[in-house]
Amino acid sequence: MRRTLPTSEEFVKGIRAGDRVVLGKAITLVESARSEHHALAQEVIGHLLARGDRAESLRVAVTGAPGVGKSTLIEALGTHITREGKKVAVLAIDPTSSLSKGSILGDKTRMERLSNNENAFIRPSPSGNSLGGVARKTRETILLVEAAGYDTVIIETVGVGQSEIAAHSMTDVFMLLLLPGAGDELQGIKRGIVEMADILAVNKADGDRTKLAGQARAFYHNATHLLPPKANGWAPRVLTCSAETGTGIDKLWETVLAFETQSRVNGYFYENRKQQAEYWLQEALQAGLQSALFEHAGVRTALAALKPEVLAGRLSPFAAAERVLAVFLKDQNA
Amino acid sequence: MRRTLPTSEEFVKGIRAGDRVVLGKAITLVESARSEHHALAQEVIGHLLARGDRAESLRVAVTGAPGVGKSTLIEALGTHITREGKKVAVLAIDPTSSLSKGSILGDKTRMERLSNNENAFIRPSPSGNSLGGVARKTRETILLVEAAGYDTVIIETVGVGQSEIAAHSMTDVFMLLLLPGAGDELQGIKRGIVEMADILAVNKADGDRTKLAGQARAFYHNATHLLPPKANGWAPRVLTCSAETGTGIDKLWETVLAFETQSRVNGYFYENRKQQAEYWLQEALQAGLQSALFEHAGVRTALAALKPEVLAGRLSPFAAAERVLAVFLKDQNA
Repeated sequence: MRRTLPTSEEFVKGIRAGDRVVLGKAITLVESARSEHHALAQEVIGHLLARGDRAESLRVAVTGAPGVGKSTLIEALGTHITREGKKVAVLAIDPTSSLSKGSILGDKTRMERLSNNENAFIRPSPSGNSLGGVARKTRETILLVEAAGYDTVIIETVGVGQSEIAAHSMTDVFMLLLLPGAGDELQGIKRGIVEMADILAVNKADGDRTKLAGQARAFYHNATHLLPPKANGWAPRVLTCSAETGTGIDKLWETVLAFETQSRVNGYFYENRKQQAEYWLQEALQAGLQSALFEHAGVRTALAALKPEVLAGRLSPFAAAERVLAVFLKDQNA
Repeated sequence: MRRTLPTSEEFVKGIRAGDRVVLGKAITLVESARSEHHALAQEVIGHLLARGDRAESLRVAVTGAPGVGKSTLIEALGTHITREGKKVAVLAIDPTSSLSKGSILGDKTRMERLSNNENAFIRPSPSGNSLGGVARKTRETILLVEAAGYDTVIIETVGVGQSEIAAHSMTDVFMLLLLPGAGDELQGIKRGIVEMADILAVNKADGDRTKLAGQARAFYHNATHLLPPKANGWAPRVLTCSAETGTGIDKLWETVLAFETQSRVNGYFYENRKQQAEYWLQEALQAGLQSALFEHAGVRTALAALKPEVLAGRLSPFAAAERVLAVFLKDQNA
């Protein structure tokens, strides 16, 4: 038996009232591939956004290689945040989750304490065939959870690919988790990701590993000082912490808030959000154009005929593109 | 007084005969922003390509930070190549050249010996507002010089930005020049560029710097061994040379040829060219679509109205993109 979906008014009302069931349904709508779900989701988001950007919210990216303890740290951090009277939503971007059956956040038992916290909302990564699709869904889900009153949004990524660039393009502050050691652990992390980080946290600084964590901290402190200064004037900070014992979690969150305060005071926070909105507009235009192009029957026929010529080097890629685009744009020139 | 342009038949005949004046004019046509030049250039390239890809040519990217001695090395390498009975063309990708008035290859006196060599053809970087435009022109110029009989094409880039990715997407082998020292010189080079390199050459290995160059060679040898293996099964080689004294230039070229032989034997050479052609087809489609979109009057009006709403956070970037695309695609759905 099919259940009727709530109307867009019901969605908007429920979300604004902080109803977690309605919020969850709305996210499912955003994640759906069905066009009627898509249209309804856009309508809901349209209503929710009518009041303007949630400039009071804080969006935090947390990344790090597998095994660095991201889930445990997010649980510790999220619990700390809720104790300060905030509401926290934890989302994820993992384009591999459909393959790995949800390698990150797929299993709520990994954040057992936080998932039972009434001021926390945890949602596993949407699945999808492309990073672009997954990232877009997460970006729209941010708008939903913020409208439901979650003023702190944590975006988790796996730290090994392009997902970090996507997370960076939708958050206000970027945190990179590292393991004790000095340099070796960088092998799993692309250099560009270190350069994106506002805050680096050497996790597992407990017991026998405390000394090693301190050395890693010094190593990364030196390494980040070689990087060019950030646009917002912030010098990346390197800390040690232990998500397991809780040591350093308060200090870590204080540092996030120090970054936020500086960014808001010098205006970078708002400028960055505008740039991100523009970036996503361009991305959405490009993605929409591409799918319109490749769904066009005439384009498919033309490409099927021309592509082998291009691959054989008998036709320049540029000439082929012009012919294909002429087919696509023909109607408009009429 | 305006001079009449050669016809496309005259261009094709002149280029195939190796006429340098006609070749130069054809490249100017490719670089021109005027639409009638563009159409003629496409016609010429279309004729020249009809015989299929110049699979016998070899395209070599040479990059490195400013001051590493790229021009001197290319002059030494180019002279060496012509002595082996080959014809060499030297092109460049430098999107900053319109600003810096041709920082690379802009001044032919920097390669005086090679520019007087009748088996060498040197062309400065095309200018342009975007890397995409500059790279596209260079990519088309490769087709022209190959049709004119230049069987070895060297593409020079400045080693500090995105130009290397463009050069990598149109060459068969990628060479990175480095300075003696161990690690410091990497600061000017993005890590991804080291990963693209098939051959690393520590230049200026002469006089007092010979020992330091040897140490740098050992350092990079170790560093590249940490990188994942290349798709073609080639392990990057690190050499020392001195473009100034000529030491190691023959060995450097031998290594390029060893790479070429291995790639041809295992088929990677041809597979890579196909992938590059496909990449450029996608790029050209995307670039063409974007300019059609932003030149559309209705799109401009819609964007002018919607973009401020997106930047203020009152409209989702995705909803705005859908509305803009609806304007653009309206005629097609009719």
